[in-house]
Amino acid sequence: MTVDVSVIGLGPMGSALAGAFVAAGHRTCVWNRTPGKADALVAKGAAEAASPGEAVAASPLVVVSLSTYEAVQEVLRPLAGGLAGRTLVNLTSGPPPLARETAGWALECGAAYLDGVVLTTPSGIGDQRFLQLYAGPPEAFAGHRATLAVLGDPVYLGADAALPSVYDTALLCQLWAALTGWLHSVVLVGADGPGGGVTATEYTKVADRWMDTVRHFMGTYARQVDAGRYPAEEFPLDLHRMTMAVLSHASELRGVDTGLPELFTSLTARATAAGYGDDSYARLVEFVRAKPRPDAVFVRP
Amino acid sequence: MTVDVSVIGLGPMGSALAGAFVAAGHRTCVWNRTPGKADALVAKGAAEAASPGEAVAASPLVVVSLSTYEAVQEVLRPLAGGLAGRTLVNLTSGPPPLARETAGWALECGAAYLDGVVLTTPSGIGDQRFLQLYAGPPEAFAGHRATLAVLGDPVYLGADAALPSVYDTALLCQLWAALTGWLHSVVLVGADGPGGGVTATEYTKVADRWMDTVRHFMGTYARQVDAGRYPAEEFPLDLHRMTMAVLSHASELRGVDTGLPELFTSLTARATAAGYGDDSYARLVEFVRAKPRPDAVFVRP
Repeated sequence: MTVDVSVIGLGPMGSALAGAFVAAGHRTCVWNRTPGKADALVAKGAAEAASPGEAVAASPLVVVSLSTYEAVQEVLRPLAGGLAGRTLVNLTSGPPPLARETAGWALECGAAYLDGVVLTTPSGIGDQRFLQLYAGPPEAFAGHRATLAVLGDPVYLGADAALPSVYDTALLCQLWAALTGWLHSVVLVGADGPGGGVTATEYTKVADRWMDTVRHFMGTYARQVDAGRYPAEEFPLDLHRMTMAVLSHASELRGVDTGLPELFTSLTARATAAGYGDDSYARLVEFVRAKPRPDAVFVRP
Repeated sequence: MTVDVSVIGLGPMGSALAGAFVAAGHRTCVWNRTPGKADALVAKGAAEAASPGEAVAASPLVVVSLSTYEAVQEVLRPLAGGLAGRTLVNLTSGPPPLARETAGWALECGAAYLDGVVLTTPSGIGDQRFLQLYAGPPEAFAGHRATLAVLGDPVYLGADAALPSVYDTALLCQLWAALTGWLHSVVLVGADGPGGGVTATEYTKVADRWMDTVRHFMGTYARQVDAGRYPAEEFPLDLHRMTMAVLSHASELRGVDTGLPELFTSLTARATAAGYGDDSYARLVEFVRAKPRPDAVFVRP
């Protein structure tokens, strides 16, 4: 059997990945520990491997989607001898050190290793609006980019296999922060306005467009953070602090949990107290940085 | 003197507004309490009024940009008799109740009153990427929309004059939340990755594109908030909570202030403890809502 791509692991995500490959016309081989998971894919034209070794042997490109890195090691380690010349794309979620460790092991086996993160749920696979992040040898990514592109919008981050996991956590942090801010705002406008409040849908029409301004600030402030200089021009921290006081007051008055305004008000107050009132919001990066714990080691939470 | 638009108040914002009108070819009359502020605008073709009454008499459209609503009242109240038939566009910042009060007073004077907020700094005036929010009689907005559009991208919110101020505070809350999340993420990726860290600029290329996914969630969750039902489909609060633990651990390990992860982790934990682990993130809206204080009154902070 020779196919274009093999998919190891047919949980909800692995099945969605394999389904996207099949739908795009790629000859696809699939394997799952528990039998039966492949039936729907086989009905659409996928080949089912009898063993993970057969799946690896069938294709130069092997996409792995399992529950944990432990499961990846358990399935792949016995196949070490058959991995030379293959490109492994590991889309299993896990912490950065395990991604690096797996990359090192794959290198010893003579395989090219790409670690990846799919920034959507299984039903979003194949939707070009959603990003997929990859890292590893640039030539391995370039060689398989077109195939991987049927899964979504592939972005190459660099050589370090830990990068997708690091970005994943950072982007989720941004998602949670942005959504929590949005929820706060939805409650704020819902408690005021005509007829007893603005609906979330109505408010979000404007909030959606406002995200372009947020992006504009992110871009400007990214350059400031990298330069370590924070010119505020017309929107200094002193002004942020004044308008934050309006938000805190409105939140308290309208019965909105004040945890969020208190968080950035306190950060801003620390920076202005330290004499940075004329600087931009990007100066707060120095107050978000705490001291690293020298004794810290990464354990799985 | 008859012009297309009069601008009262020539601080940095008022001067930028008048400058945009002049640049767009509108005959523009300006007035400022302190003389001399109009000189640059007069050099570009603006007419300078000797008094605010003359500025109001000169044009059917009067744009007001002063430091506070108190200043607005001080300047406009003596002119009450001359306001009938004029459209007043008040771009002065202030709390919602004062916007409503000023709208009521303008109505008594026979003037159409639009309250507005300019969502940029003076240097952004005239840039179509930035929004301006207006509220008041819909026909007054429709009649002057084209003139106001030279200032940026005008958005009409509704009849209640308080809406721009309410939206302004809510959108700033979103900005601060999103930027604080982004700063946290910038520190997180900077402490790891190849060669000792990813630059803010490098990270922000991906973070910028990720904002489309954030918007996608906002749109979906807005409909859920309005319906009061929160189906999670593939991304329930139990899963958020698990991945938040990864973020908290990574933040602590890499020396990032843990205030932000603690905030949304605690909100999420309250919701899952209340039995909502299968619901979407939008369920948290009910935990952001606190009880309104029945004795609360709006005072200027």
